[in-house]
Parts: sequence; C-alpha cells; structure tokens
Amino acid sequence: MRNLINILDFSVEEIDRLIDVADDIIKNPESYSEVCRHKILATLFYEPSTRTRLSFESAMLSLGGSVLGFSEAGSSSASKGESVADTATMVSAYSDIVVMRHPKEGAPIVAAQHSSVPVINAGDGGHYHPTQTLTDLMTIRHEKGRLDNLTIGLCGDLKFGRTVHSLISAMSRYSGVKFVLISPEELRLPGFVKYEYIEKKGIEFVQCQSLEEAIPSLDVLYMTRIQRERFVSDDEYLRLKDTYILTEDKMRLAGSDMIVMHPLPRVNEISVAVDSDSRACYFKQAKYGRYIRMALIMKLLGLIKDDAAPAPRESEEEIVYNRFRCRNTRCITSVEQELVQAFKLTDKENGIYRCVYCETRQN
Amino acid sequence: MRNLINILDFSVEEIDRLIDVADDIIKNPESYSEVCRHKILATLFYEPSTRTRLSFESAMLSLGGSVLGFSEAGSSSASKGESVADTATMVSAYSDIVVMRHPKEGAPIVAAQHSSVPVINAGDGGHYHPTQTLTDLMTIRHEKGRLDNLTIGLCGDLKFGRTVHSLISAMSRYSGVKFVLISPEELRLPGFVKYEYIEKKGIEFVQCQSLEEAIPSLDVLYMTRIQRERFVSDDEYLRLKDTYILTEDKMRLAGSDMIVMHPLPRVNEISVAVDSDSRACYFKQAKYGRYIRMALIMKLLGLIKDDAAPAPRESEEEIVYNRFRCRNTRCITSVEQELVQAFKLTDKENGIYRCVYCETRQN
Amino acid sequence: MRNLINILDFSVEEIDRLIDVADDIIKNPESYSEVCRHKILATLFYEPSTRTRLSFESAMLSLGGSVLGFSEAGSSSASKGESVADTATMVSAYSDIVVMRHPKEGAPIVAAQHSSVPVINAGDGGHYHPTQTLTDLMTIRHEKGRLDNLTIGLCGDLKFGRTVHSLISAMSRYSGVKFVLISPEELRLPGFVKYEYIEKKGIEFVQCQSLEEAIPSLDVLYMTRIQRERFVSDDEYLRLKDTYILTEDKMRLAGSDMIVMHPLPRVNEISVAVDSDSRACYFKQAKYGRYIRMALIMKLLGLIKDDAAPAPRESEEEIVYNRFRCRNTRCITSVEQELVQAFKLTDKENGIYRCVYCETRQN
Repeated sequence: MRNLINILDFSVEEIDRLIDVADDIIKNPESYSEVCRHKILATLFYEPSTRTRLSFESAMLSLGGSVLGFSEAGSSSASKGESVADTATMVSAYSDIVVMRHPKEGAPIVAAQHSSVPVINAGDGGHYHPTQTLTDLMTIRHEKGRLDNLTIGLCGDLKFGRTVHSLISAMSRYSGVKFVLISPEELRLPGFVKYEYIEKKGIEFVQCQSLEEAIPSLDVLYMTRIQRERFVSDDEYLRLKDTYILTEDKMRLAGSDMIVMHPLPRVNEISVAVDSDSRACYFKQAKYGRYIRMALIMKLLGLIKDDAAPAPRESEEEIVYNRFRCRNTRCITSVEQELVQAFKLTDKENGIYRCVYCETRQN
Repeated sequence: MRNLINILDFSVEEIDRLIDVADDIIKNPESYSEVCRHKILATLFYEPSTRTRLSFESAMLSLGGSVLGFSEAGSSSASKGESVADTATMVSAYSDIVVMRHPKEGAPIVAAQHSSVPVINAGDGGHYHPTQTLTDLMTIRHEKGRLDNLTIGLCGDLKFGRTVHSLISAMSRYSGVKFVLISPEELRLPGFVKYEYIEKKGIEFVQCQSLEEAIPSLDVLYMTRIQRERFVSDDEYLRLKDTYILTEDKMRLAGSDMIVMHPLPRVNEISVAVDSDSRACYFKQAKYGRYIRMALIMKLLGLIKDDAAPAPRESEEEIVYNRFRCRNTRCITSVEQELVQAFKLTDKENGIYRCVYCETRQN
Repeated sequence: MRNLINILDFSVEEIDRLIDVADDIIKNPESYSEVCRHKILATLFYEPSTRTRLSFESAMLSLGGSVLGFSEAGSSSASKGESVADTATMVSAYSDIVVMRHPKEGAPIVAAQHSSVPVINAGDGGHYHPTQTLTDLMTIRHEKGRLDNLTIGLCGDLKFGRTVHSLISAMSRYSGVKFVLISPEELRLPGFVKYEYIEKKGIEFVQCQSLEEAIPSLDVLYMTRIQRERFVSDDEYLRLKDTYILTEDKMRLAGSDMIVMHPLPRVNEISVAVDSDSRACYFKQAKYGRYIRMALIMKLLGLIKDDAAPAPRESEEEIVYNRFRCRNTRCITSVEQELVQAFKLTDKENGIYRCVYCETRQN
C-alpha cells in the first residue's frame, strides 16, 4: 500500500505518469466518472482549508465516489482528546482512502502508520504539502511544456512556506533547473532546505531581495503570501511590503512567456489587475489541482496500470528510538504523548540526526 | 448562462414554468432521480442556515447529483482573507453550480461576475432571498390555486425582512394584488421598497399596526420573526409583542380559506397550537422548497426545455463607476477592497443613483 | 413506522436478526451496495461526535445512499432558536431517515413525535445511546459466540456513562448474565438503573472498586472514560486514577479468552501497549459499528424481510400530563418551552412517576 506524505515518496517517473492520467481525465472525463463508485474518501481537516478540501471532494465526486469527514478539529473527536493514531485507525474502518490536514508536523506519518487504507498528506503545519506540489508540477508541464531547463523564481515568505519547500525538493530532481530565491532577509529559505535540495545537489541558485531585479530572468514566478507578523518590525514591513506585491508594472519587466503561479488563497500580494494578463496561471493552477488529485486517488486505490518505478525506499537502519527528544513545538510528538521519539541519521559525515516526523535536528 | 440573484431576474412566465416542473417532480419523482448524475452543487454558506442549505442539498441529491461546500465562514478560506471573487473563481472550477449565502449585500453579484458556472443567491444580508420567494410563490399557487387577485398580509418586521421585500417585488407583477402591511411603526417597509414595487405601480395597499384588525380581510397571511433588539425601547417591545404573535384566537377572526405562511425558522411568533389548523401552511411551504429548488437547479443547468421568455435585461448604460462611494456598511463593497464602486441611475427624473450591489442611494 | 430511541425498543429477536444481516453484509458487501440508492440520511448532530457521525455516514454511503446534515449546533437553525420539533418536521421533508445526537435527554423522542420519517437516537445527553449498544452486542456475539451465560465487567464511570446504562439494559434480557460493576464510590451505577435492570430481574452482580481484583473472573471487560472533574476532590482522583487504567500488567491477570471493549474515543484509560494484545477488541468494535448501522438503516427503511416479533409496546394509559414538572436541567423539557410535561407511572406499588423524556423521578 502506498501513501503520499512527501512529494519525494513518488519517483519522477511516477509523477510523469500521474500528469499523463490527469491530462487524459481532462480530455475524457466521462471515462472516469464511475471508476470510484462505492469508494469512500475521508477528509480529516484538523484545520480549515476550503481550497484543498473542496478540490479533493470535487476530485472524488467526479470519479463517482463519495466523501465523509470533518472540516475543523472542533467538530471532531480530537476535541475529546483522541490521538491521531486512534482516529486514523477508526476512520480507515469507515473509508477507502484518507486525506489529512493537520497543524502539527508529521501527523500524517502517524496516521499512515495506523491506517489500513492509503493516507494523503494535505498539509502538515509548515512542513509539507505534496498535493499542492503535484498541482504545481502539472501546471508547469502544461504551461511551459517541460519540467527541466527552467529558471524558477520563488518570491515572498520562503521561510515558513511549505509549498515552496515541497516545490524546491520536487524540482531539484529535474536537470537544468535554476532557482531564484526572492525574499526579505528574515524570510529566507531555511538552511536545511537550501543545503539538502539545492547546494548538495550542485544546483545553480541566486538569493536576492528585489522582485523587480529578478523578474526579467524567470521562466516561472511562484508567488506566496507574506504575513505582516513575520517581520521583525512593523517599519521593516512597511518598507518592504510593496517589493513583494506583483503589479502590472512589474509584469512589464517580465518575459512574454513567463508564467505566474500562486498556491492561493492570495490576499493582496498579486494585484487584481494582473488577473487578466495571459501569463497569470494561478486560477488555471486551481483547476489542474482537481484533475491531478483525481489521478492521485486512482493511483493510491490501485486503479491505474502503473509500471513506473517507485521512488527508492530509504533504509530504516539508521533510525534510533528514544535517544533524542524532539524540541520542535510544532511537531506531532509534542502533543501525542504515547508516540515514540524517532530520529534518523541524515548526515553520516557530521553525525546529524533529524526527527522522523518533522525533520528537526536533534539538540 | 443564467444566474438567480434577484427574483426579478426571472419573468412571470419563467416562474410559472418552474412551478410546473416542480409539480411534475412531486408527481413523478423517479423520472428526475438521475437527471443531475455527475453534476456537483457547491454550497458556499458564509453564515449558517440549516433550512436553506439542507433544502438545496436535498434537492441536488434527489436529482442524483452530489454536493460539496462549507456551512460557515470559519471553515472557509474567507477566514484567511480570500475575496468573494477569488473564492467564486476557484469553486466554479470544482463544481457545476454554486449556491451562496453571505452576510454582505451584493456578494452573490460579485460571485456571479467571476464564476464560470451559474450562481444562486441563497440570501445576501438583509437584501434578497429569491429562492425563498420561489418557494412562497409555489406555496401560494398550490394552496390558493392562483397568483393574481389576492389580498396578502405581511406581518412583523417589514423593515429588515429580506423575504418580505423579495415577495412584494415578485407579487407586484400579478394583477389584482393588494398588500396589507402590518408592523410596528419602527419596523415599517422601507420607503424605497414601498415606492418601487407598490406605489409606482399603482398597487392598492394598507399600512396598519394591528394583526387582529387586518386578519379578516386576508387571503394570505405571511408571518415573519420580529426581534426584540429591533425596537427602540424594551417598553415598546413589551407593549407590542403580543400583537404580532399569531394565536388560535386570532385565527378565529380569519376567513376559512386564508392560508398562513412563514419562511421559518419561527421562534414564538406563531403559537404551536396553530400548527394543527388546516390553514397553517408553513410546514408544507418547507416541503415545496425542496421541489422548486430541484426545478431551479435543472433550469440553470439547462436541463429544462424552457421556451418561456426571460425577464428583459436592464440596460447597463446608466451605470457610473467610481463616481460615488457606497455608504452602506452591509454592502459587499465595504469589505472587498478591490471592487469598483458602481452606481446605476434608477430614477432619471430626480437623478437618483443606487449602488449596483446593495441598492443603497448615493449620498 | 419504527424508530430507535432506546435499545429496548427492539426485541431480543429483532436484535438477533439485525446482527445476522450485519454478518451477511460483511460477507457480501456488493449485494448491499445499491439498496439505499436515492435514499437520503439526515445527520442532525447538535454536539460533535466524529465516530458516531462518520460511522453512520459510512454506513449510508456503503448502501448507495446519500447524506446531508450538520455536525454541530452552531451551524444549524438551533442557533436561531428553532425548536427540535420544528427542525425534525422540516428535516423529515428533506430526507428518508434521521439520526440525531443532542445534549438534552429525550430530544430524539420529541423529534420522533414530529418527524414523518424514522428517527435514530445517536446519543441524548447522558441518557441513551442505542446504536453503540447494538455495536457492543454484535461485538460480543462475534467475539464470544454468544450473548448469554457471560460475566461482564463494566469499569470506570458507571454513573454518567450512557453506553453502560444502555448495555446493561440490553444484556439483562439474556439468561445467565452476571455483572461486575467496577468504579469509584462516587461514580457508581445510578440506583434506578441498578434496580430496574439488575435487582428487579434477579440478576447476579458484584460492585467493587478494584479492576485488578475483578479482572480474572470476566468474560467481557467493558472500559469507559473517567473524567477528572467527576471526582469529589483532586486528591481522590490522583489516588484512584491508576486503578482504572488498563495496562499490560492488569491484562496478565485476565483469562485468555476475555475480550476488552471500549466505546471510544479513549484518552488514556487503556494503555496503547494493550492494543496489540489479541484480546483487545475495541478497534474491531468500531468496524462492526458500520455494519450494524447498515443493517439498522435497512430495517428502519423497511428493506429487511423481518419476521422477528417486535418488543411489546408499553401501554400509554399511565401517562399523566402537566401534573408534574421535570426538575432535570438536562431534560429536553427544560429548554423547549412549548413541550407538554408528561410523566409515566413506572412503579405502581410505590406510586412513582418518571418523566417520559428523561426518566427522572417526579419531585
């Protein structure tokens, strides 16, 4: 049984095949309208997310299946103190596939350990959001015709943006990719992500603070929301905020075939005037999200003839139990008391271990 | 593509045809049980409304379709600051038809401007509620056998009651209709509604404060909730409240074929003892609501052979942009910052413009 | 038309037949996957309960039907002050069968009085929870092979635990049953339940405070949650709490074929280490819950050929109206103001009347 916790759980070939299926669904929706008949998708959203939840529900309904679940923790057993492990055990008895959004990092890993059906991570805190990344990859392949040889600008909050981290890790597997990391000093890409997916792999990249300077060189501009409270001071925020708002003026500096993406919802970081620019792809992106999720559900339910080689499984030899204690307060181990502390040796040379659930370094 | 924002979007002929279809559904439910197969209804309820939401969901499910959505703003992207325009764009990529309830007046107009699928207004603040009005019209035609030549009493809060405003505008198109407007001084019908739909059309009407005096003359009594906090003083409330409660005693003063309607939920404005009176039609009304919504969904999805002439479209020549600023704090333009201020010349003689979204007069 | 408010509404034969159907569903799920096509289940959850709600939704979807409803009172008309009676009248116009969870005791009785379709009680305050009991009975029959000649230990909060009260009343109808009531002094089984279902019927029972002492004699151990705030003092809680936590150590004292049950969700009253013990049946129990609810929905919709004799209906001769006033603040009569106070003579000898809704004794 396969799950999707991290985009790297799927090989490049598997992702290619998934996008092929999604493309075929767009062309022949009727051929797919009953393939999940009598199948049930459970949506366990411990925090609200209209877009992600509705796109999954739409995907399952469009395959002829049904949906049950909850859209916020308040109306779930979690409010009675039930563990993620118990909820996953229970819900997997009531459904054929589970989608989970959780505020704590690593929660979907716990769910997958206990579920008897496939589990999809629909966002775990600031950690991963692999189905957004599948959507992003499908959008890029559709709009640019390829996934390699691209200069990709990522703009805004690169520190806390889980969609950015997932996208970088996914794109780092294609050849000829360059990254342009555009953010204020305090919201730079975390060192671990930069090292692991860019530097270690010898990928070309630039870090800068100005969207205007960066935009002419880009094939893809990936915008993200940037929250006022992330800045060290309000003065700093006021000084910088306009730099990270995409306007018609800045679009004039961009190439004619650059595409603009955004995971949505946006607040004001892309001016509404840009919506009518043919290079604005964020609403198309939302549409693709439904089709790639249809393909994903089919894949995990074993409904796709899939001869793509899976991603190589990492060995579990280097995992140590209860030797370290995770200090990340956003980690699922900080709230689920009976969870065993598990750390993996991720850097043999320097003897660095990271939490299996949230990837925070041992202290 | 058609939407239903205001009951006047539909011509009298179209409404007649809709009620015909609803009647046929009651007689032959099996013929309709699969007509919306593979269609998805999105219910975007930014404020809770069990009755309206469940009747739409029941309608769509009874047509063989499916439903997704949210039942309060807290579990939607709105809590992250997404605009109605963006939410509508996104959700219309995930569904075939959208139903929206929103606390701000005019929000469904904004949704319709951005949606790629039909939009139904399920109540926008104190403004309109056209599907309640369709339900009311179906109930009257069923129970009285006609929509013309009726004396209609409207009782309670006529100032803030959106169902009352919508019903008056709809009934004002039938000949021989008289209105009896029964309310305390401070909750009288707004001047604009009275002028536009009654006086300007030369329709006979009476304004009074006593339900007891009015009831003997009525063919239809339309009751509404009257909230304590609407009164100028609590003394005033206590003095008047019993006047607007329908009891068995007051029913004795009514004609034997008068019908009692109420949009529900009621609190205490109709005594439970009246429920068993055969003239009490409010629970039947709730039942009709499901069938007329089934017909409406079919119509907007193009599933009805409909040769009824549509309502004439108003010309857009007289709309001015950004000349006035809407001062109504309940208007959608007060919260959606990138919305263009739009006003329409509604009274050429006196040069009066009204907000396109909420119909408030320019200041 | 039948409802399920109290487990005693069904005869022993009917319950046997229901479990037979549930067994057949497990064996031949495809034969049942379309039996409720075009049927709608309404889930009216005035307080959240993931497990119960999702198991009902899963049951209905697995029968090919659809689901609508609400998962907490906040997003329902109840927040506008609508009565349970009116909500039930309305919702039964939109659905074919209704499931209700309500914080007030007796609320589902009121719903059943007004609904035009069958009503299932999914928990009314601390009162009844008959579908949990059906689940429990199915689990016992499956895991122990019989429902008679069993020694059943009930452990934890026996005072407020509605699942315990329902299970005792149900099991008291089988021969050779013995109860072992394990709880702290302050959380003992209420006298009325003990008298009515155990003592009056001459059933053997033991009351004790130690799980360790009781466990060796048991065929079935039914664990429940025990809330800190139920204890008279915090010292008392700290002194006693470990006594009521099931650990591997205590399991070593139990027989090899004892089964452990729990209505779930658990917090910490069963150690996670016990989960892998083959005698731990609480997750299986959750699975059975889906199948028995499928059978129940079919039964109430008249889809089972059912020749089992129903439970004898109690005579209504002994009900008096408006003679007493229920003093139980958790009774539905305390909030629904137009409900008639109704008391039944339950003990002729001593002239004791009990509230029809919540069974509280007259004062």
